[in-house]
Amino acid sequence: MSSIRVSLVQLKVTGSKNYILQNTINQIRIAALEKNATLVVLPECFNCPYEEDALVESAEEIPTGETSQVLSRAAKDYGVYIVGGSIVERYADNLYITCPVWNPKGELIAIYRKMHLGDSNASADAIVRESAWFTAGETFVTFDVGEVKVGLGICWDMRFPEFAACYRMLGCDVLIYPSLCDVHTGTKHWQLLARARALDNQLFVAFCSPARNVEAKLVAFGHSLVVDPWGEVIAMGKEKEDIVVADLKLDLLREAREHMPVMEQKRFNLYNSVSISDNQ
Amino acid sequence: MSSIRVSLVQLKVTGSKNYILQNTINQIRIAALEKNATLVVLPECFNCPYEEDALVESAEEIPTGETSQVLSRAAKDYGVYIVGGSIVERYADNLYITCPVWNPKGELIAIYRKMHLGDSNASADAIVRESAWFTAGETFVTFDVGEVKVGLGICWDMRFPEFAACYRMLGCDVLIYPSLCDVHTGTKHWQLLARARALDNQLFVAFCSPARNVEAKLVAFGHSLVVDPWGEVIAMGKEKEDIVVADLKLDLLREAREHMPVMEQKRFNLYNSVSISDNQ
Repeated sequence: MSSIRVSLVQLKVTGSKNYILQNTINQIRIAALEKNATLVVLPECFNCPYEEDALVESAEEIPTGETSQVLSRAAKDYGVYIVGGSIVERYADNLYITCPVWNPKGELIAIYRKMHLGDSNASADAIVRESAWFTAGETFVTFDVGEVKVGLGICWDMRFPEFAACYRMLGCDVLIYPSLCDVHTGTKHWQLLARARALDNQLFVAFCSPARNVEAKLVAFGHSLVVDPWGEVIAMGKEKEDIVVADLKLDLLREAREHMPVMEQKRFNLYNSVSISDNQ
Repeated sequence: MSSIRVSLVQLKVTGSKNYILQNTINQIRIAALEKNATLVVLPECFNCPYEEDALVESAEEIPTGETSQVLSRAAKDYGVYIVGGSIVERYADNLYITCPVWNPKGELIAIYRKMHLGDSNASADAIVRESAWFTAGETFVTFDVGEVKVGLGICWDMRFPEFAACYRMLGCDVLIYPSLCDVHTGTKHWQLLARARALDNQLFVAFCSPARNVEAKLVAFGHSLVVDPWGEVIAMGKEKEDIVVADLKLDLLREAREHMPVMEQKRFNLYNSVSISDNQ
Protein backbone atom coordinates (compact mmCIF):
# COMPACT_ATOMS: atom_id res chain seq x y z
CA MET A 1 0.00 0.00 0.00
CA SER A 2 1.68 3.21 -1.13
CA SER A 3 -1.25 5.58 -0.64
CA ILE A 4 -4.75 5.81 0.80
CA ARG A 5 -7.48 7.83 -0.85
CA VAL A 6 -9.55 9.78 1.65
CA SER A 7 -12.78 11.62 0.87
CA LEU A 8 -14.07 14.29 3.24
CA VAL A 9 -17.81 14.63 2.72
CA GLN A 10 -18.59 18.28 3.44
CA LEU A 11 -22.33 17.80 3.91
CA LYS A 12 -24.85 20.59 4.07
CA VAL A 13 -26.84 19.94 7.24
CA THR A 14 -30.39 21.00 6.47
CA GLY A 15 -33.88 19.49 6.46
CA SER A 16 -35.27 16.52 8.35
CA LYS A 17 -33.12 13.72 9.75
CA ASN A 18 -34.53 11.42 7.06
CA TYR A 19 -33.52 13.85 4.37
CA ILE A 20 -30.06 14.30 5.87
CA LEU A 21 -29.45 10.57 6.13
CA GLN A 22 -30.57 10.04 2.54
CA ASN A 23 -28.22 12.78 1.37
CA THR A 24 -25.45 11.27 3.48
CA ILE A 25 -25.87 7.90 1.78
CA ASN A 26 -25.82 9.56 -1.63
CA GLN A 27 -22.66 11.45 -0.86
CA ILE A 28 -20.95 8.34 0.55
CA ARG A 29 -21.89 6.50 -2.63
CA ILE A 30 -20.30 9.20 -4.77
CA ALA A 31 -17.20 9.32 -2.54
CA ALA A 32 -16.83 5.55 -2.76
CA LEU A 33 -17.86 4.69 -6.30
CA GLU A 34 -17.06 7.85 -8.26
CA LYS A 35 -14.16 9.26 -6.24
CA ASN A 36 -12.78 5.79 -5.41
CA ALA A 37 -12.10 6.58 -1.76
CA THR A 38 -10.96 3.88 0.66
CA LEU A 39 -11.89 6.00 3.66
CA VAL A 40 -14.92 8.31 3.76
CA VAL A 41 -15.17 10.94 6.49
CA LEU A 42 -18.33 12.77 7.64
CA PRO A 43 -18.39 16.07 9.55
CA GLU A 44 -19.04 16.76 13.21
CA CYS A 45 -22.75 16.98 13.99
CA PHE A 46 -23.83 15.96 10.49
CA ASN A 47 -27.24 14.49 11.32
CA CYS A 48 -28.86 17.48 13.04
CA PRO A 49 -28.40 21.23 13.44
CA TYR A 50 -25.98 22.40 16.16
CA GLU A 51 -28.64 23.67 18.59
CA GLU A 52 -29.13 22.44 22.12
CA ASP A 53 -32.66 21.06 21.75
CA ALA A 54 -31.98 19.45 18.40
CA LEU A 55 -28.76 17.88 19.63
CA VAL A 56 -30.36 16.34 22.70
CA GLU A 57 -33.31 15.14 20.65
CA SER A 58 -31.01 13.57 18.05
CA ALA A 59 -29.33 11.29 20.59
CA GLU A 60 -29.05 7.65 19.56
CA GLU A 61 -27.44 4.54 20.90
CA ILE A 62 -24.51 3.13 18.95
CA PRO A 63 -24.71 0.77 17.06
CA THR A 64 -28.46 0.19 17.43
CA GLY A 65 -29.60 3.71 16.48
CA GLU A 66 -30.89 4.70 13.06
CA THR A 67 -27.80 6.67 12.00
CA SER A 68 -25.48 3.81 12.93
CA GLN A 69 -27.60 1.35 11.01
CA VAL A 70 -27.58 3.56 7.93
CA LEU A 71 -23.81 4.08 8.05
CA SER A 72 -23.03 0.43 8.70
CA ARG A 73 -25.10 -0.52 5.66
CA ALA A 74 -23.47 2.16 3.50
CA ALA A 75 -19.99 0.99 4.51
CA LYS A 76 -20.87 -2.55 3.47
CA ASP A 77 -22.80 -1.58 0.34
CA TYR A 78 -20.02 0.61 -1.01
CA GLY A 79 -17.05 -1.28 0.47
CA VAL A 80 -15.47 1.65 2.34
CA TYR A 81 -14.34 2.62 5.79
CA ILE A 82 -16.68 5.29 7.17
CA VAL A 83 -15.58 7.72 9.88
CA GLY A 84 -19.03 8.66 11.07
CA GLY A 85 -18.42 12.33 11.83
CA SER A 86 -20.06 12.88 15.18
CA ILE A 87 -23.38 11.64 16.48
CA VAL A 88 -24.90 12.57 19.82
CA GLU A 89 -24.67 9.24 21.60
CA ARG A 90 -26.80 8.12 24.53
CA TYR A 91 -24.70 5.76 26.60
CA ALA A 92 -25.09 4.71 30.23
CA ASP A 93 -27.47 7.60 30.97
CA ASN A 94 -25.06 10.20 29.58
CA LEU A 95 -24.80 12.02 26.28
CA TYR A 96 -21.51 12.03 24.40
CA ILE A 97 -20.31 13.59 21.14
CA THR A 98 -19.16 10.42 19.50
CA CYS A 99 -17.35 9.39 16.34
CA PRO A 100 -18.03 5.77 15.33
CA VAL A 101 -16.11 4.01 12.56
CA TRP A 102 -17.24 1.15 10.32
CA ASN A 103 -15.08 -1.05 8.13
CA PRO A 104 -15.95 -2.16 4.57
CA LYS A 105 -17.78 -5.20 5.97
CA GLY A 106 -20.12 -2.84 7.84
CA GLU A 107 -18.60 -3.79 11.21
CA LEU A 108 -18.26 -1.15 13.91
CA ILE A 109 -14.52 -1.03 14.66
CA ALA A 110 -14.06 2.13 16.77
CA ILE A 111 -16.05 4.49 19.00
CA TYR A 112 -14.32 7.74 19.96
CA ARG A 113 -16.01 10.05 22.48
CA LYS A 114 -14.93 13.72 22.35
CA MET A 115 -12.36 14.26 25.05
CA HIS A 116 -12.22 18.08 25.10
CA LEU A 117 -15.72 19.54 25.11
CA GLY A 118 -15.99 22.95 23.47
CA ASP A 119 -16.59 25.52 26.19
CA SER A 120 -15.72 28.82 24.61
CA ASN A 121 -16.84 32.24 23.65
CA ALA A 122 -14.11 32.61 21.09
CA SER A 123 -16.37 34.83 19.02
CA ALA A 124 -19.78 36.40 19.44
CA ASP A 125 -21.06 33.96 16.81
CA ALA A 126 -20.02 30.92 18.74
CA ILE A 127 -20.69 30.98 22.44
CA VAL A 128 -20.87 27.30 23.29
CA ARG A 129 -20.89 25.35 26.51
CA GLU A 130 -20.83 21.70 25.57
CA SER A 131 -19.94 20.59 29.07
CA ALA A 132 -23.43 21.64 30.19
CA TRP A 133 -24.96 19.15 27.78
CA PHE A 134 -22.45 16.36 27.31
CA THR A 135 -20.04 14.10 29.13
CA ALA A 136 -16.40 14.05 28.04
CA GLY A 137 -14.75 10.89 26.74
CA GLU A 138 -11.75 9.42 28.50
CA THR A 139 -10.03 7.32 25.85
CA PHE A 140 -7.76 7.75 22.82
CA VAL A 141 -9.17 5.61 20.00
CA THR A 142 -7.42 4.34 16.88
CA PHE A 143 -8.25 1.97 14.07
CA ASP A 144 -6.22 0.38 11.29
CA VAL A 145 -6.58 0.68 7.53
CA GLY A 146 -4.16 -1.94 6.32
CA GLU A 147 -0.79 -1.01 7.81
CA VAL A 148 -1.86 2.53 8.63
CA LYS A 149 -3.09 3.51 12.08
CA VAL A 150 -5.63 6.32 12.26
CA GLY A 151 -6.35 8.38 15.40
CA LEU A 152 -9.64 10.14 16.09
CA GLY A 153 -10.44 13.55 17.52
CA ILE A 154 -13.43 15.86 17.26
CA CYS A 155 -13.26 19.63 16.67
CA TRP A 156 -12.18 21.33 19.94
CA ASP A 157 -9.68 18.51 20.49
CA MET A 158 -7.66 20.17 17.69
CA ARG A 159 -6.59 22.93 20.12
CA PHE A 160 -4.60 20.58 22.34
CA PRO A 161 -1.15 19.77 21.00
CA GLU A 162 -0.62 17.12 23.68
CA PHE A 163 -3.65 15.21 22.40
CA ALA A 164 -2.22 14.92 18.88
CA ALA A 165 1.22 14.09 20.30
CA CYS A 166 -0.29 11.18 22.23
CA TYR A 167 -1.65 9.74 18.98
CA ARG A 168 1.78 9.96 17.38
CA MET A 169 3.16 8.10 20.39
CA LEU A 170 0.46 5.49 19.87
CA GLY A 171 1.84 4.93 16.36
CA CYS A 172 -0.65 6.91 14.27
CA ASP A 173 0.10 8.07 10.73
CA VAL A 174 -3.20 9.88 10.19
CA LEU A 175 -5.40 11.98 12.49
CA ILE A 176 -9.01 12.65 11.56
CA TYR A 177 -11.07 15.36 13.26
CA PRO A 178 -14.72 15.70 12.22
CA SER A 179 -15.21 19.37 13.15
CA LEU A 180 -17.69 22.22 13.20
CA CYS A 181 -16.07 25.59 13.62
CA ASP A 182 -17.77 29.00 13.29
CA VAL A 183 -16.71 31.22 10.39
CA HIS A 184 -14.88 33.83 12.49
CA THR A 185 -12.73 31.34 14.37
CA GLY A 186 -12.34 29.10 11.34
CA THR A 187 -10.98 31.96 9.28
CA LYS A 188 -8.36 32.65 11.92
CA HIS A 189 -7.40 29.22 13.24
CA TRP A 190 -8.64 26.31 11.12
CA GLN A 191 -5.76 25.96 8.69
CA LEU A 192 -3.18 26.98 11.29
CA LEU A 193 -4.23 24.24 13.69
CA ALA A 194 -4.44 21.53 11.03
CA ARG A 195 -0.98 22.40 9.73
CA ALA A 196 0.55 22.66 13.20
CA ARG A 197 -0.82 19.31 14.36
CA ALA A 198 0.47 17.68 11.15
CA LEU A 199 3.93 19.27 11.16
CA ASP A 200 4.57 18.82 14.88
CA ASN A 201 3.68 15.15 14.73
CA GLN A 202 4.74 14.38 11.15
CA LEU A 203 1.51 12.73 10.13
CA PHE A 204 -1.49 13.42 7.91
CA VAL A 205 -4.29 15.50 9.44
CA ALA A 206 -7.84 15.82 8.08
CA PHE A 207 -10.54 18.18 9.35
CA CYS A 208 -14.02 17.50 7.94
CA SER A 209 -16.57 20.32 8.34
CA PRO A 210 -20.22 20.62 7.36
CA ALA A 211 -20.85 22.90 4.37
CA ARG A 212 -21.67 26.51 5.18
CA ASN A 213 -25.38 27.01 5.79
CA VAL A 214 -26.06 30.67 6.48
CA GLU A 215 -29.49 29.82 7.88
CA ALA A 216 -28.00 27.71 10.68
CA LYS A 217 -27.66 29.05 14.22
CA LEU A 218 -23.98 28.15 14.20
CA VAL A 219 -22.69 28.71 10.67
CA ALA A 220 -19.95 26.22 9.81
CA PHE A 221 -16.70 27.44 8.28
CA GLY A 222 -16.48 24.68 5.67
CA HIS A 223 -13.00 24.40 4.09
CA SER A 224 -12.55 20.72 4.97
CA LEU A 225 -8.88 20.01 4.43
CA VAL A 226 -6.07 17.50 4.45
CA VAL A 227 -2.50 18.36 5.46
CA ASP A 228 0.59 16.24 4.84
CA PRO A 229 3.37 15.34 7.34
CA TRP A 230 5.41 18.39 6.23
CA GLY A 231 2.54 20.71 7.18
CA GLU A 232 1.45 21.37 3.56
CA VAL A 233 -2.25 21.59 2.68
CA ILE A 234 -2.81 18.96 -0.03
CA ALA A 235 -6.59 19.35 -0.47
CA MET A 236 -9.15 21.88 0.71
CA GLY A 237 -12.83 22.53 0.03
CA LYS A 238 -14.61 25.85 -0.16
CA GLU A 239 -17.85 26.77 1.61
CA LYS A 240 -20.48 24.78 -0.29
CA GLU A 241 -21.36 21.09 -0.15
CA ASP A 242 -18.47 19.19 -1.65
CA ILE A 243 -16.39 16.04 -1.49
CA VAL A 244 -12.73 16.82 -0.82
CA VAL A 245 -10.42 14.07 -2.07
CA ALA A 246 -6.80 13.50 -1.10
CA ASP A 247 -4.34 10.70 -1.72
CA LEU A 248 -2.22 10.19 1.39
CA LYS A 249 1.18 9.26 0.00
CA LEU A 250 2.61 7.12 2.74
CA ASP A 251 6.24 7.68 1.67
CA LEU A 252 5.92 11.22 2.99
CA LEU A 253 5.66 9.87 6.53
CA ARG A 254 9.07 8.25 6.37
CA GLU A 255 10.54 11.19 4.47
CA ALA A 256 9.48 13.83 7.00
CA ARG A 257 10.45 11.69 9.99
CA GLU A 258 13.89 10.85 8.60
CA HIS A 259 14.70 14.40 7.58
CA MET A 260 13.58 15.95 10.86
CA PRO A 261 13.70 13.27 13.55
CA VAL A 262 11.86 15.33 16.16
CA MET A 263 10.29 12.33 17.91
CA GLU A 264 13.72 10.99 18.79
CA GLN A 265 14.79 14.48 19.90
CA LYS A 266 12.01 15.05 22.42
CA ARG A 267 13.11 15.64 26.01
CA PHE A 268 10.27 13.85 27.79
CA ASN A 269 12.04 13.74 31.14
CA LEU A 270 12.37 17.54 31.08
CA TYR A 271 8.78 18.14 29.93
CA ASN A 272 7.54 15.82 32.64
CA SER A 273 9.42 17.80 35.28
CA VAL A 274 6.98 20.69 34.79
CA SER A 275 3.33 20.63 35.84
CA ILE A 276 0.42 23.01 35.93
CA SER A 277 0.99 23.52 39.66
CA ASP A 278 4.29 25.25 38.84
CA ASN A 279 2.33 28.31 37.75
CA GLN A 280 2.08 30.31 40.96
CA MET B 1 2.11 48.24 32.89
CA SER B 2 -0.31 47.78 30.00
CA SER B 3 2.20 46.97 27.27
CA ILE B 4 5.86 46.17 26.66
CA ARG B 5 7.71 47.37 23.61
CA VAL B 6 9.99 44.72 22.14
CA SER B 7 12.56 45.29 19.41
CA LEU B 8 13.93 42.38 17.43
CA VAL B 9 17.32 43.36 16.02
CA GLN B 10 17.60 41.46 12.73
CA LEU B 11 21.37 41.85 12.40
CA LYS B 12 23.35 41.09 9.28
CA VAL B 13 26.12 38.77 10.41
CA THR B 14 29.15 39.70 8.32
CA GLY B 15 32.72 40.85 8.83
CA SER B 16 35.03 40.44 11.81
CA LYS B 17 33.82 39.84 15.36
CA ASN B 18 34.88 43.37 16.24
CA TYR B 19 32.86 44.77 13.39
CA ILE B 20 29.82 42.64 14.32
CA LEU B 21 29.95 43.68 17.97
CA GLN B 22 30.24 47.35 17.02
CA ASN B 23 27.23 47.01 14.71
CA THR B 24 25.35 45.17 17.45
CA ILE B 25 25.94 48.05 19.88
CA ASN B 26 24.76 50.54 17.27
CA GLN B 27 21.59 48.60 16.57
CA ILE B 28 20.85 48.17 20.28
CA ARG B 29 21.29 51.93 20.71
CA ILE B 30 18.80 52.62 17.93
CA ALA B 31 16.35 50.03 19.31
CA ALA B 32 16.58 51.54 22.77
CA LEU B 33 16.85 55.28 22.16
CA GLU B 34 15.06 55.79 18.83
CA LYS B 35 12.55 52.92 18.92
CA ASN B 36 12.03 53.19 22.70
CA ALA B 37 12.13 49.46 23.33
CA THR B 38 12.10 48.05 26.84
CA LEU B 39 13.36 44.68 25.67
CA VAL B 40 15.88 44.23 22.84
CA VAL B 41 16.35 40.82 21.27
CA LEU B 42 19.32 39.63 19.18
CA PRO B 43 19.28 36.66 16.77
CA GLU B 44 20.68 33.18 17.17
CA CYS B 45 24.38 32.99 16.30
CA PHE B 46 24.73 36.76 15.85
CA ASN B 47 28.44 37.11 16.62
CA CYS B 48 29.90 34.72 14.05
CA PRO B 49 28.91 32.88 10.87
CA TYR B 50 27.08 29.57 11.27
CA GLU B 51 30.00 27.32 10.24
CA GLU B 52 31.54 24.63 12.40
CA ASP B 53 35.06 26.07 12.67
CA ALA B 54 33.86 29.61 13.21
CA LEU B 55 31.35 28.53 15.85
CA VAL B 56 33.89 26.58 17.86
CA GLU B 57 36.41 29.38 17.55
CA SER B 58 33.84 31.94 18.69
CA ALA B 59 33.24 30.18 22.03
CA GLU B 60 33.34 32.43 25.10
CA GLU B 61 32.65 32.07 28.76
CA ILE B 62 29.63 33.89 30.13
CA PRO B 63 29.76 36.52 31.62
CA THR B 64 33.51 37.03 31.35
CA GLY B 65 33.79 36.78 27.54
CA GLU B 66 34.01 39.74 25.20
CA THR B 67 30.47 39.48 23.84
CA SER B 68 28.98 39.30 27.33
CA GLN B 69 30.94 42.33 28.42
CA VAL B 70 29.80 44.32 25.41
CA LEU B 71 26.14 43.38 25.90
CA SER B 72 26.18 44.01 29.64
CA ARG B 73 27.57 47.47 29.01
CA ALA B 74 25.05 48.20 26.27
CA ALA B 75 22.14 47.12 28.53
CA LYS B 76 23.34 49.53 31.21
CA ASP B 77 24.26 52.36 28.84
CA TYR B 78 20.90 52.30 27.09
CA GLY B 79 18.74 51.17 30.01
CA VAL B 80 17.20 48.11 28.34
CA TYR B 81 16.79 44.40 28.83
CA ILE B 82 18.91 42.54 26.27
CA VAL B 83 18.11 38.99 25.19
CA GLY B 84 21.54 38.14 23.88
CA GLY B 85 20.52 35.96 20.93
CA SER B 86 22.80 32.99 21.11
CA ILE B 87 26.50 32.81 21.83
CA VAL B 88 28.60 29.67 21.69
CA GLU B 89 29.40 29.25 25.37
CA ARG B 90 32.33 27.33 26.81
CA TYR B 91 31.23 25.96 30.17
CA ALA B 92 32.69 23.09 32.20
CA ASP B 93 34.64 21.75 29.21
CA ASN B 94 31.54 21.66 26.99
CA LEU B 95 30.19 23.96 24.32
CA TYR B 96 26.57 25.12 24.50
CA ILE B 97 24.37 27.31 22.32
CA THR B 98 23.41 29.79 24.97
CA CYS B 99 21.10 32.75 25.34
CA PRO B 100 22.11 35.11 28.14
CA VAL B 101 19.90 37.99 29.33
CA TRP B 102 20.91 41.28 30.93
CA ASN B 103 18.70 43.74 32.77
CA PRO B 104 18.86 47.54 32.40
CA LYS B 105 21.46 47.70 35.18
CA GLY B 106 23.74 45.51 33.06
CA GLU B 107 23.28 42.53 35.40
CA LEU B 108 23.16 39.01 33.95
CA ILE B 109 19.75 37.67 34.99
CA ALA B 110 19.28 34.50 32.91
CA ILE B 111 21.34 31.93 31.00
CA TYR B 112 19.37 29.56 28.77
CA ARG B 113 21.20 26.68 27.05
CA LYS B 114 19.52 25.26 23.92
CA MET B 115 17.62 22.15 24.94
CA HIS B 116 16.85 20.68 21.50
CA LEU B 117 19.95 20.71 19.32
CA GLY B 118 19.23 21.01 15.61
CA ASP B 119 20.03 17.67 14.00
CA SER B 120 18.26 17.74 10.69
CA ASN B 121 18.53 17.58 6.97
CA ALA B 122 15.22 19.31 6.46
CA SER B 123 16.49 20.75 3.20
CA ALA B 124 19.58 20.36 1.07
CA ASP B 125 20.59 23.88 2.14
CA ALA B 126 20.58 23.08 5.81
CA ILE B 127 22.10 19.77 6.79
CA VAL B 128 23.11 20.38 10.38
CA ARG B 129 24.24 18.15 13.20
CA GLU B 130 24.57 20.36 16.23
CA SER B 131 24.78 17.42 18.61
CA ALA B 132 28.20 16.58 17.14
CA TRP B 133 29.48 19.98 18.26
CA PHE B 134 27.45 21.03 21.26
CA THR B 135 25.98 19.79 24.52
CA ALA B 136 22.25 20.19 25.11
CA GLY B 137 20.88 22.27 27.98
CA GLU B 138 18.71 20.70 30.64
CA THR B 139 16.77 23.61 32.11
CA PHE B 140 13.80 25.83 31.30
CA VAL B 141 14.81 29.44 31.98
CA THR B 142 12.59 32.46 32.57
CA PHE B 143 13.10 36.06 33.60
CA ASP B 144 10.76 38.84 34.66
CA VAL B 145 10.12 42.21 33.08
CA GLY B 146 7.97 43.88 35.68
CA GLU B 147 4.95 41.62 36.14
CA VAL B 148 5.58 39.74 32.89
CA LYS B 149 7.42 36.42 32.82
CA VAL B 150 9.42 35.65 29.69
CA GLY B 151 10.53 32.14 28.67
CA LEU B 152 13.53 31.41 26.48
CA GLY B 153 14.07 28.98 23.61
CA ILE B 154 16.47 28.87 20.68
CA CYS B 155 15.51 27.98 17.09
CA TRP B 156 15.03 24.18 16.86
CA ASP B 157 13.23 24.31 20.23
CA MET B 158 10.33 25.90 18.30
CA ARG B 159 9.44 22.49 16.85
CA PHE B 160 8.48 20.98 20.20
CA PRO B 161 4.99 21.93 21.36
CA GLU B 162 5.59 20.37 24.78
CA PHE B 163 8.50 22.75 25.35
CA ALA B 164 6.32 25.83 24.84
CA ALA B 165 3.52 24.27 26.89
CA CYS B 166 5.93 23.84 29.81
CA TYR B 167 6.69 27.57 29.74
CA ARG B 168 2.98 28.38 29.86
CA MET B 169 2.70 26.08 32.88
CA LEU B 170 5.61 27.98 34.43
CA GLY B 171 3.53 31.15 34.13
CA CYS B 172 5.04 32.75 31.04
CA ASP B 173 3.28 35.44 29.01
CA VAL B 174 5.98 35.82 26.37
CA LEU B 175 8.30 33.32 24.66
CA ILE B 176 11.40 34.52 22.85
CA TYR B 177 13.32 32.30 20.43
CA PRO B 178 16.49 33.75 18.88
CA SER B 179 16.57 31.63 15.71
CA LEU B 180 18.46 30.95 12.51
CA CYS B 181 16.44 29.04 9.96
CA ASP B 182 17.40 28.38 6.33
CA VAL B 183 15.32 30.03 3.63
CA HIS B 184 13.64 26.83 2.37
CA THR B 185 12.47 25.68 5.79
CA GLY B 186 11.74 29.20 6.95
CA THR B 187 9.46 29.81 3.99
CA LYS B 188 7.48 26.69 4.86
CA HIS B 189 7.48 26.58 8.67
CA TRP B 190 8.63 29.82 10.33
CA GLN B 191 5.33 31.68 10.57
CA LEU B 192 3.35 28.48 11.12
CA LEU B 193 5.40 27.47 14.13
CA ALA B 194 5.41 30.94 15.70
CA ARG B 195 1.64 31.22 15.32
CA ALA B 196 0.97 27.70 16.60
CA ARG B 197 3.14 28.11 19.71
CA ALA B 198 1.38 31.43 20.45
CA LEU B 199 -2.18 30.24 19.86
CA ASP B 200 -1.81 26.90 21.64
CA ASN B 201 -0.37 28.56 24.72
CA GLN B 202 -2.12 31.93 24.52
CA LEU B 203 0.99 34.01 24.91
CA PHE B 204 3.20 36.29 22.81
CA VAL B 205 5.89 34.61 20.73
CA ALA B 206 8.89 36.33 19.14
CA PHE B 207 11.38 34.74 16.72
CA CYS B 208 14.47 36.87 16.03
CA SER B 209 16.53 35.89 12.95
CA PRO B 210 19.72 37.28 11.47
CA ALA B 211 19.22 39.28 8.25
CA ARG B 212 19.59 37.37 5.01
CA ASN B 213 23.19 37.24 3.85
CA VAL B 214 23.38 35.38 0.56
CA GLU B 215 27.14 35.00 0.95
CA ALA B 216 26.76 32.97 4.14
CA LYS B 217 27.07 29.19 4.16
CA LEU B 218 23.70 28.89 5.88
CA VAL B 219 21.52 31.71 4.53
CA ALA B 220 19.12 32.96 7.20
CA PHE B 221 15.41 33.35 6.40
CA GLY B 222 15.04 36.71 8.11
CA HIS B 223 11.39 37.68 8.73
CA SER B 224 11.79 38.14 12.47
CA LEU B 225 8.28 38.30 13.85
CA VAL B 226 6.03 38.73 16.86
CA VAL B 227 2.73 36.88 17.27
CA ASP B 228 -0.02 37.71 19.77
CA PRO B 229 -1.91 35.30 22.07
CA TRP B 230 -4.64 34.83 19.42
CA GLY B 231 -2.06 33.61 16.91
CA GLU B 232 -2.02 36.84 14.87
CA VAL B 233 1.26 38.18 13.47
CA ILE B 234 1.59 41.73 14.86
CA ALA B 235 5.01 42.62 13.43
CA MET B 236 7.33 41.05 10.89
CA GLY B 237 10.54 42.06 9.16
CA LYS B 238 11.65 41.30 5.62
CA GLU B 239 15.02 39.88 4.56
CA LYS B 240 17.39 42.80 5.11
CA GLU B 241 18.90 44.17 8.31
CA ASP B 242 16.10 45.76 10.26
CA ILE B 243 14.69 46.43 13.70
CA VAL B 244 11.22 44.92 14.12
CA VAL B 245 9.17 46.70 16.78
CA ALA B 246 6.06 45.40 18.53
CA ASP B 247 4.02 46.58 21.48
CA LEU B 248 2.86 43.58 23.47
CA LYS B 249 -0.59 44.62 24.71
CA LEU B 250 -0.92 42.66 27.90
CA ASP B 251 -4.74 42.82 27.94
CA LEU B 252 -4.72 40.36 25.05
CA LEU B 253 -3.37 37.67 27.36
CA ARG B 254 -6.39 37.84 29.65
CA GLU B 255 -8.75 38.24 26.71
CA ALA B 256 -7.56 35.14 24.86
CA ARG B 257 -7.40 33.03 28.01
CA GLU B 258 -10.89 34.02 29.17
CA HIS B 259 -12.51 33.51 25.79
CA MET B 260 -10.90 30.12 25.16
CA PRO B 261 -9.89 28.63 28.53
CA VAL B 262 -7.85 25.78 27.04
CA MET B 263 -5.42 25.58 29.95
CA GLU B 264 -8.26 24.68 32.29
CA GLN B 265 -9.58 22.20 29.74
CA LYS B 266 -6.41 20.16 29.35
CA ARG B 267 -6.68 16.47 30.24
CA PHE B 268 -3.24 15.99 31.76
CA ASN B 269 -4.08 12.67 33.37
CA LEU B 270 -5.06 11.26 29.97
CA TYR B 271 -2.02 12.69 28.16
CA ASN B 272 0.24 11.29 30.86
CA SER B 273 -1.25 7.84 30.38
CA VAL B 274 0.47 7.62 26.98
CA SER B 275 4.21 7.30 26.49
CA ILE B 276 6.62 6.82 23.61
CA SER B 277 6.92 3.13 24.50
CA ASP B 278 3.26 2.69 23.48
CA ASN B 279 4.35 2.87 19.85
CA GLN B 280 5.01 -0.76 19.01
